[in-house]
Amino acid sequence: MTLMKSWVDSANDANHPFPLNNLPYGVFSVSDDDPHCGVAIGDMIFDCAAAEESGLIDLGVGSVFDVPFWNEVMELGADKWAELRARLTAILSEGSADQDAAKDMLVAQSDATMHMPFLVSEYTDFYAGKNHAFNVGTMFRGPENALPPNWLHIPIGYNGRASSVVVSGTDVRRPWGQLKGPNDAAPRFAPCARFDIELEVGAIVGTASDGPITVQEADDNIFGYVLLNDWSARDIQAWEYQPLGPFQAKATATTISPWIVTKAALNPFRCDTPAREVELLDHLKDCGPMLYDIDLEVTLRPEGGSESTIARTNYKEMYYSAAQQLAHHTTSGCPMNTGDLLGSGTISGPTKESRGSLLELSWGGKEPLELASGETRNFIEDNDTLTLKGAAKGDGYTIGFGDCVGKVLPALDDPYKR
Amino acid sequence: MTLMKSWVDSANDANHPFPLNNLPYGVFSVSDDDPHCGVAIGDMIFDCAAAEESGLIDLGVGSVFDVPFWNEVMELGADKWAELRARLTAILSEGSADQDAAKDMLVAQSDATMHMPFLVSEYTDFYAGKNHAFNVGTMFRGPENALPPNWLHIPIGYNGRASSVVVSGTDVRRPWGQLKGPNDAAPRFAPCARFDIELEVGAIVGTASDGPITVQEADDNIFGYVLLNDWSARDIQAWEYQPLGPFQAKATATTISPWIVTKAALNPFRCDTPAREVELLDHLKDCGPMLYDIDLEVTLRPEGGSESTIARTNYKEMYYSAAQQLAHHTTSGCPMNTGDLLGSGTISGPTKESRGSLLELSWGGKEPLELASGETRNFIEDNDTLTLKGAAKGDGYTIGFGDCVGKVLPALDDPYKR
Repeated sequence: MTLMKSWVDSANDANHPFPLNNLPYGVFSVSDDDPHCGVAIGDMIFDCAAAEESGLIDLGVGSVFDVPFWNEVMELGADKWAELRARLTAILSEGSADQDAAKDMLVAQSDATMHMPFLVSEYTDFYAGKNHAFNVGTMFRGPENALPPNWLHIPIGYNGRASSVVVSGTDVRRPWGQLKGPNDAAPRFAPCARFDIELEVGAIVGTASDGPITVQEADDNIFGYVLLNDWSARDIQAWEYQPLGPFQAKATATTISPWIVTKAALNPFRCDTPAREVELLDHLKDCGPMLYDIDLEVTLRPEGGSESTIARTNYKEMYYSAAQQLAHHTTSGCPMNTGDLLGSGTISGPTKESRGSLLELSWGGKEPLELASGETRNFIEDNDTLTLKGAAKGDGYTIGFGDCVGKVLPALDDPYKR
Repeated sequence: MTLMKSWVDSANDANHPFPLNNLPYGVFSVSDDDPHCGVAIGDMIFDCAAAEESGLIDLGVGSVFDVPFWNEVMELGADKWAELRARLTAILSEGSADQDAAKDMLVAQSDATMHMPFLVSEYTDFYAGKNHAFNVGTMFRGPENALPPNWLHIPIGYNGRASSVVVSGTDVRRPWGQLKGPNDAAPRFAPCARFDIELEVGAIVGTASDGPITVQEADDNIFGYVLLNDWSARDIQAWEYQPLGPFQAKATATTISPWIVTKAALNPFRCDTPAREVELLDHLKDCGPMLYDIDLEVTLRPEGGSESTIARTNYKEMYYSAAQQLAHHTTSGCPMNTGDLLGSGTISGPTKESRGSLLELSWGGKEPLELASGETRNFIEDNDTLTLKGAAKGDGYTIGFGDCVGKVLPALDDPYKR
């Protein structure tokens, strides 16, 4: 696969995140328009609702784009996903007969506001990055007991809060919570002092299921991927999480990037999971390359300061693919729905510079991180802006994700005052 | 408060679960009708959609009853909840001028099929019954360490799967899962051998919130209550639940009773939480009686056998009220939505006969339970029917919940065969 040429000039750059090869799906609005579906091409957005209204796109199923979510398209299933992608490719290709009709349906991304690209049905967050699990386990239990006994056998995860998922650009308010340090006599209710990111990739379920599904079926059911920052209040988490798992520590916000990058766009970047230390049971075994080679990066920008890259890693560091996670999610018969979002778990590489959370980067606050500005960080400070970036690098082209950005506002003085 | 008389004769019985004092909300259908909203009165259902169409009920907000869920009414807020209850009370009271118009809008419950009464936005399950937490903790960690350190300070809970919530009467298929006993060399994938119930009461969020709310605000936002059976695969749970909490063990199904009993109907039965062993922090402190005196019962009926009562307890055994749980749920800023369902946690009393799960009743399978038929049970066997029952007993009247029933079907031979 090489760069596919478009008549939208800005898309024909080897480093542009949104070439014709990508065609990621988002929801946008311009001025007072109602948010609706569009696809990114170069610096522009192609207005799918306008294309549908004019007849330029017709999936034969009635109107599906003049709504502020992609769930209706997801529900159509894989054949229609392929049909839509083929049609968009034809319309936007260099030399397309549709260029004249389509060119008035382009909007500059710089003029648009991006919204949540889909309705999140339910949100599950996994813990399937081995370096992350090992690092966190080492800090809490020592290196001998770092990985929980089940870790190499199932992609462990917990259910998160769909209501807290927000789109890139949404400010995140530092939460209050109940805290108790190991040496405190009693807990107290106070603002979180150890607010953190988690660098993740989110998989979006496109096709619903109602019973156990295989890893291959799970891969088939996934619609696409986004970058995902699972904001985490480490001090709230430490006090609340035993024995039932993370709860309020993860419920303030989870930010996703605005563009759904489809499985089709990522296909050339499929790669295998790492070698297994123990054989998986049959129902979770790999049956093809279902991870993706996606370069990932985290930056931190203090208020008024410059941006520092604080971590670089790759999605292929995961021990379990999203398909394996989804298959495991269904083993008990759990119904999965269109719009379910699965967080990969924090993606950390083997080196210090490739760790996907401040908890790991500062080793629990013991090794402060130096920023370009000379400032240091253990955890996030007020008005810091954190950005996740992701891109798969092909032969002369890039499949970019669009940044996943969030600025952390100071905690309220009194969270109950309105 | 005494029994309020209705012109629907069957409602005027001191032991009937659905007198005029109750008026619980459900979704029903008769033959091929689309499911829509109705209210139980005696042995009948008053068809709210028909009443709305004829103008007998008019909340001034357009049509809200001709849909298969009560969420639209919930979203209207507490003033409209009170207005609706007052209007229904007027229509169905003895001597009502509306009797002639309303009598054709009654359907016999025996002719109706009940459906899920509301759309579950998200589902959270708490662990807020002290006897249950103490019993389970004692089995796993000994009586000295039975309660986790945070337990007396916050109502701990975890997010469950809304997609798995079903209405009473739905069969539940015994799940498969990954299992590993403490003496097994490796895990295996097999049908659950320790399938269990959890006797709970579910609180339904009526009014949404978007930031921390007080206990009083939380109580105000609750629309009503249902009985809730959180089916639990104890062997799957034992292997998966550390460190992230219950996941697939709780995702097969959660069954709720078909009628939403409103807060208004339960008001006469409000009672205080038990004496606190340690003082709660201000934001979680009790600010009025927010538990309810509701007698609860669990029965088990083997296929073809007779029903045995295996547990009797009361909702007032909880350590935390649903209002305290909801308030805690919002501390981090977590948005809560209309239709969010909060499970109380298993409700066990102090005596052996008042334990709300088979895990406790059989003490981890070591003390088999004797049934009326002479059979014994450690956990649920195939084709057993489990029923939760609940009723608040007033002065000459009863506020009943309608049974919460589920029959457990055998596991599939091969869960991946279709």
